[in-house]
Amino acid sequence: MMRLYDYYDSGNGYKVRLLLTQLGIPFEHLEKDILKGETRSPDFLTINPNGRIPVLEVEPGLYLSESNAILIYLSEGTEFLPEDKFDRARVFEWLFFEQYSHEPFIATSRFWLRHGFAKQKQQALQEKQAPGYAALEVLEKRLKDHPFLVNDRYTIADIALYAYTHVAPQGGFSLKKFPAILSWCDRVSNQPNHITIETAMIETATIEIAL
Amino acid sequence: MMRLYDYYDSGNGYKVRLLLTQLGIPFEHLEKDILKGETRSPDFLTINPNGRIPVLEVEPGLYLSESNAILIYLSEGTEFLPEDKFDRARVFEWLFFEQYSHEPFIATSRFWLRHGFAKQKQQALQEKQAPGYAALEVLEKRLKDHPFLVNDRYTIADIALYAYTHVAPQGGFSLKKFPAILSWCDRVSNQPNHITIETAMIETATIEIAL
Repeated sequence: MMRLYDYYDSGNGYKVRLLLTQLGIPFEHLEKDILKGETRSPDFLTINPNGRIPVLEVEPGLYLSESNAILIYLSEGTEFLPEDKFDRARVFEWLFFEQYSHEPFIATSRFWLRHGFAKQKQQALQEKQAPGYAALEVLEKRLKDHPFLVNDRYTIADIALYAYTHVAPQGGFSLKKFPAILSWCDRVSNQPNHITIETAMIETATIEIAL
Repeated sequence: MMRLYDYYDSGNGYKVRLLLTQLGIPFEHLEKDILKGETRSPDFLTINPNGRIPVLEVEPGLYLSESNAILIYLSEGTEFLPEDKFDRARVFEWLFFEQYSHEPFIATSRFWLRHGFAKQKQQALQEKQAPGYAALEVLEKRLKDHPFLVNDRYTIADIALYAYTHVAPQGGFSLKKFPAILSWCDRVSNQPNHITIETAMIETATIEIAL
């Protein structure tokens, strides 16, 4: 059975959990507490020298890291990744957009706000507002005329972008001005075998006010 | 003929130029000056709403952005991307590592230093030192026992990581303590049909002292 080294609060981990579930692949979940440095231990660094979750042990002793690389690996040959070469490239384009232009602003802000770094990171949080909203604008623009990001069907591009977008308010980013994103979030959460990120949405409001 | 919207000083653009050249694919080069905002013009935003080069026009009117997505698109079915599914996933792992854990520190520092932001960004440059060196440590560890990043042969993983690693000193990162990286840079630059990033290496020394 595949084994997932994960951290429940992580959107990157959630991407992999969600796809594994939707593919019907059973897996063992191993929780690693980022805040306690459990991904920087010598043991963990042998499975991912970059010291991050998620890591998927696809076979005993064979470890794959980088959430979006894991999504591609798992989805090849399935309905979650298009067969057409250019459509597939479009999916990859969104995956790299997510890791470079979206995650470092929205996910990092969310992490700081949820784990008590709001005061210490006040200036950095402010600086992440503009690029974070710019990423949301790019998404909104695309989703205004399309039900999903690529080829008008649900793919790993949607999974990758949904992971931190739907909890963006927890990072201090309001989605109120992004109706297309909100509709898309509904569509994604209504896909067969959807699972939630398991975070209490009640925290959102508190954090938005706090910021 | 394919058309590449590019900026000569960009390592991300260089990745695509290098692969196109090594694949023997002729292309038209269109220079866009980042510093003059040429990638944020309304016209440019219609071809990449995220406002960044490189963008490859693979067919008239069909635009692909994100350097590493372009590398995957161009290399599928060639010797630059392995056929085995897990090996391919390993390549993708390095591509996402590059965009998340390497480029934002090393490439961004290099950009600031080369374009007159050294004083304005002094603190940010300092903060990028530790994560930038951490990325180089991960590379060094891998290359200590392997001639190339994946499967002991030259792939787009090497192209993606080489682009900003070999000019890391221009970003204030010394490579002197990374013998395996230096040997690998030699191997990469000795591949058939290699082209350089076309930057004067003499600048390196000046910038290292300046920092």
